[in-house]
Amino acid sequence: MPTDMTAPISQVSPGSYGSFIPTVQPLRQDFLDEAQTHLDSLTKPRGSLGRMEDLAKKLFAVCCGQIPITVSPALMLTVAADHGVAEQGVSPYPQSVSRQMVLNFLNGGAGINVLCRTSDMDLRIVDAGCTGGPFGAHKMLLDRRLGDGTADMSRGAAMSRETCQKGLLTGIELACEAVSQGYRCLGVGEMGIANSTAGAALYSALLNIDAGDIVGPGAGSDAAMVQHKTEIVRRALHVNAKILQTGDAVDILAAVGGFEIAVMCGLMLGAASRRLPVLVDGYICGAAYAAAAAICPEVSGYCILSHLSAEPGHKLAMDRLCAARPQDSIPPLLHLGMRLGEGTGGAVAYHLLRCAAAIYNDMATMRSAGVSGRM
Amino acid sequence: MPTDMTAPISQVSPGSYGSFIPTVQPLRQDFLDEAQTHLDSLTKPRGSLGRMEDLAKKLFAVCCGQIPITVSPALMLTVAADHGVAEQGVSPYPQSVSRQMVLNFLNGGAGINVLCRTSDMDLRIVDAGCTGGPFGAHKMLLDRRLGDGTADMSRGAAMSRETCQKGLLTGIELACEAVSQGYRCLGVGEMGIANSTAGAALYSALLNIDAGDIVGPGAGSDAAMVQHKTEIVRRALHVNAKILQTGDAVDILAAVGGFEIAVMCGLMLGAASRRLPVLVDGYICGAAYAAAAAICPEVSGYCILSHLSAEPGHKLAMDRLCAARPQDSIPPLLHLGMRLGEGTGGAVAYHLLRCAAAIYNDMATMRSAGVSGRM
Repeated sequence: MPTDMTAPISQVSPGSYGSFIPTVQPLRQDFLDEAQTHLDSLTKPRGSLGRMEDLAKKLFAVCCGQIPITVSPALMLTVAADHGVAEQGVSPYPQSVSRQMVLNFLNGGAGINVLCRTSDMDLRIVDAGCTGGPFGAHKMLLDRRLGDGTADMSRGAAMSRETCQKGLLTGIELACEAVSQGYRCLGVGEMGIANSTAGAALYSALLNIDAGDIVGPGAGSDAAMVQHKTEIVRRALHVNAKILQTGDAVDILAAVGGFEIAVMCGLMLGAASRRLPVLVDGYICGAAYAAAAAICPEVSGYCILSHLSAEPGHKLAMDRLCAARPQDSIPPLLHLGMRLGEGTGGAVAYHLLRCAAAIYNDMATMRSAGVSGRM
Repeated sequence: MPTDMTAPISQVSPGSYGSFIPTVQPLRQDFLDEAQTHLDSLTKPRGSLGRMEDLAKKLFAVCCGQIPITVSPALMLTVAADHGVAEQGVSPYPQSVSRQMVLNFLNGGAGINVLCRTSDMDLRIVDAGCTGGPFGAHKMLLDRRLGDGTADMSRGAAMSRETCQKGLLTGIELACEAVSQGYRCLGVGEMGIANSTAGAALYSALLNIDAGDIVGPGAGSDAAMVQHKTEIVRRALHVNAKILQTGDAVDILAAVGGFEIAVMCGLMLGAASRRLPVLVDGYICGAAYAAAAAICPEVSGYCILSHLSAEPGHKLAMDRLCAARPQDSIPPLLHLGMRLGEGTGGAVAYHLLRCAAAIYNDMATMRSAGVSGRM
């Protein structure tokens, strides 16, 4: 029996982080088994569509066996915010670029605009707190500001726990609104100068990875800047050590995360609670996924790791996260050396979801097509 | 100055294999450089779209700098034929499956039908010589039969040089017809029970790879059958040694290839000669590419290796071929563990071409969007 995907979130029992975190149901093994049986009956050698079959199985279980599997319409939410730690010279680009890129998004000229159009995804930009105050009203823009950039995490917590909770709730609500609007798939992306520094600190704190193994060039730091960035991440972890030691993922996200990362984390939790598949983009989005998986491990069933970033630490982090949930994780789908962010990897990978759904829904079976099986 | 893509093939001077092989122009470095300059001006960190940028550069040079880069409409040609070597028990499926699968293609129920629909490619099935005689007329079917299955290559040449030339010419003409019909991108795929045995023999003969390193399970052989298949490949190479020793790629293709492989090879040569990008599928299609590259190395500029097959030897073969033409080769784009054939990898990867073209055509520049550069 398909679950009611439109059940109000208030009917869902609270997770251990409190009533604002919705419960996420684990994927049901019987649906995964049923999908496997169907895939094995199709006109192809068993398993010959590789990861596309894993994806089809996952989608079938995500939607509780509702057929046809439907992943459109799809919505990409690109969340932008600024980071106080940018003051520490951890990015080759000035902080003003976050705001300039939001305007580029609104004008339709960025990579994410172009790729969403090509992949047939709608796109909305969420301002979670760029410096310089609110943007003017725009049909693509959702004003969900949590502040005018975070505080510098190398001097203290990036934000309070309350602000972080507000960010999570913002994401959860946005995901639920997307369900209400009829979307059947969500993509999540980000923009924020210096946010690969926050991403590295989060991976380090959540997955117990040494800063030296997880910090990389981000938007294009040279070796000296990567070294400096590593020191800044170590300093942020040291300054916030007392908070981080609690092991509370919401506290960790508040201390060394970012506004856009908190909202993306909430989007994943909200989407998973409403059985909406959600495309996780690259390195920074993956850090939001690490936080979501720490808060609620069952999100792994609903999150699709769209690509492996060129950022060196991404593979290590994704390997760890996939190994922790082998029953419902699929390793990053695309390996195209992308490292732009914005949701661009998710927008490209969305096509794979459509292909996987079509394979499941539309291929003939060996029996129906009169094709002989193995001798 | 863009080259006239509709120039009749007769105006092209013949290659060293005789007048029936059209000349293929190498990609021009000035177009590659111009594309790089443009890509570096767009609103993204340099190189941050990874392989998508390599692909955009290649497409720009393929079409000689014509903008916008246009890759649609696109046509997938799935070429089917039978193999005498199937008698040797090298596939877990009976030979009748080739014919049954062609009927499945014509009924719209196979993987390639579903994926072409999802990726917005037209699909035609070429009968290059399935056993059991011609199929009835069908709007999707192109009757280009070279015989009723090849001879058993483990007892002698699979076909004569004349038949092989006819297959190449068939493919060249089909590619030229596709250009005349307005197609801007071609996909190539295959169906033929036992054709992974022919593919392995071809790779072995063309790239000097030991049979033990290139033979794999194909559609699903167990370890014992893989061992047997390896012995059959060795026998075919031994029986045809005198022909193979000439090093003539057309002779090699005739001796240990297949009807569908010859036609696919011709499709690649024809597409390249007319500056049409062509998506190469997996293991067997890759063997046709190896033959095309031996006949005319410049085809590498126009061929796009769509995916890395789960068939173990595919990586070795593609690595060799890419290393031979580093100036215009892009390693296989997708790594999804697919091994179905039919063109399915190409149909999925076609979306990446659309994305790459859109990135090139539609993204704003740093200057036009008023985005600050590196500090």
